[in-house]
Amino acid sequence: MSAHPRLSMNVGTIKHAGFDESLRVLVDAGYRSVGLWREPIAEVGLAAAARRFHDSGLRLSTLCRQGFFTMAEGPARRASIDENRRAIEETAVLAESGAVGSRAVLVLVAGGLPEGSTDLIGARDRVADALGELAPEASAAGVTLAIEPLHPMYASDRAVVSTLRQALDLAAPFAPQTVGVAVDTFHLWWDPEVLPQIARAGREGRIATYQVCDWRTPLAADVLLSRHYPGEGVVDFAGLTAAVEAAGYTGDVEVELFNADIWASPHAEVAARTSASFAAAVAPHLAAAAAPAA
Amino acid sequence: MSAHPRLSMNVGTIKHAGFDESLRVLVDAGYRSVGLWREPIAEVGLAAAARRFHDSGLRLSTLCRQGFFTMAEGPARRASIDENRRAIEETAVLAESGAVGSRAVLVLVAGGLPEGSTDLIGARDRVADALGELAPEASAAGVTLAIEPLHPMYASDRAVVSTLRQALDLAAPFAPQTVGVAVDTFHLWWDPEVLPQIARAGREGRIATYQVCDWRTPLAADVLLSRHYPGEGVVDFAGLTAAVEAAGYTGDVEVELFNADIWASPHAEVAARTSASFAAAVAPHLAAAAAPAA
Repeated sequence: MSAHPRLSMNVGTIKHAGFDESLRVLVDAGYRSVGLWREPIAEVGLAAAARRFHDSGLRLSTLCRQGFFTMAEGPARRASIDENRRAIEETAVLAESGAVGSRAVLVLVAGGLPEGSTDLIGARDRVADALGELAPEASAAGVTLAIEPLHPMYASDRAVVSTLRQALDLAAPFAPQTVGVAVDTFHLWWDPEVLPQIARAGREGRIATYQVCDWRTPLAADVLLSRHYPGEGVVDFAGLTAAVEAAGYTGDVEVELFNADIWASPHAEVAARTSASFAAAVAPHLAAAAAPAA
Repeated sequence: MSAHPRLSMNVGTIKHAGFDESLRVLVDAGYRSVGLWREPIAEVGLAAAARRFHDSGLRLSTLCRQGFFTMAEGPARRASIDENRRAIEETAVLAESGAVGSRAVLVLVAGGLPEGSTDLIGARDRVADALGELAPEASAAGVTLAIEPLHPMYASDRAVVSTLRQALDLAAPFAPQTVGVAVDTFHLWWDPEVLPQIARAGREGRIATYQVCDWRTPLAADVLLSRHYPGEGVVDFAGLTAAVEAAGYTGDVEVELFNADIWASPHAEVAARTSASFAAAVAPHLAAAAAPAA
């Protein structure tokens, strides 16, 4: 089997597979790239995970994820900053262990409003503060922090960063190789400004990852689990993918699906269906010449 | 009993009350203003509804609602435009029948993507086209069309207008007394640009209605029914209300709650609780001097 040379599967799509099983499923299905999650790596231990990842021959597209730094100064905030430091280190190690073309990109989810707070502006300011604290460490480690704007329905409990414009404004004080953005179709498809902001992200050199999955309604009762295979919803993958291409992004394209039905399906089937849906809905809009170095 | 002089309850909050019962509940609870819905009026008939509304002594804050004109040209679109024409006429009649200070404001919900379509930009263009067709009729009738940006979680199936900036851009070609915007905290609270866009709306004279209710998670399984009494969630009513005041808005402030638990509660209790939550969470941020003419 083979998959599109730029396709990466985020292992959150096969959440119940362990670390080794995830890699095996992807290799068997012909993938060349993977987006990893920190939790399965913690179960294996970083050194062992890095070794086994190296042996898989896969590239790293991103490491998911850290962030969650909207709380006021205090022990919880210090613990979060420390956790982000560890995540930066892990990103560097794993990217070094991956195949040629691996990207040292750590995806950051901002975090929601602290319990009982209505101070959205303050929470956002504290995201900016955290980036200021972490950017020098990311830079020293050769890691790009990718701020991921999440759909506004998650603004209160998961991410106070909701639009690409906002993510780019947060990234602006830093070098683009140190702080970039994640462009995820599920989160951004609705935004009237998404196309000009993708173009801006390209001009500023800040597209650290492009992630694709589809939106459709009714939303799942747990709105976190409403993501669908590309082509099964209303997202305009032609327009968005062409915009990301025109912005100069030549990296892997990650499919990340949180969906209880998909999680309950056989992993090999999910890998095959992800690859097929990507081939049909996304790949036709990628420039053939832009495959990453292999 | 009395309620804040600028408080209006949208009768969608007591959805299962009939037309007469809605008016009675509000008068008994000391309200001076109401936001009406078209469906209960259709049950009674416009002439009878206007007469009974006049007899209630209440002001009209808005009529909800029409719009739903994202479809391509054809019979369905013509039917929608005709329905909007009728809604404009109803708005004029009801505002004329209401107490002094009534506002002839028709709330417009854009509509979602047509079935099977991923062409969000095309759907938005057709909203602009519909406004162009309806604005002269609204102007002739002395009615303000209030474009309501809805939360982006409704972008696919209910409203392709998601931000205040977008609503203001759509309104820009028209006179502000003909096409304005609805500022609803539930839909807009998350937007990083909401404060400057409220200021812009004020400068452009386009705030046709200010609606308040709260956001909290987890969202209801039917995300349409996730609205909460002011103060029971995370919305910053102080900041948003101060911004609307600073923008020069002096009209009624409407509470509109779609929530299955609230719909199942006794109507008088809902009216009292709406008034109390408004008094606690919203009223302190309204300038006392700005009550509408009575």
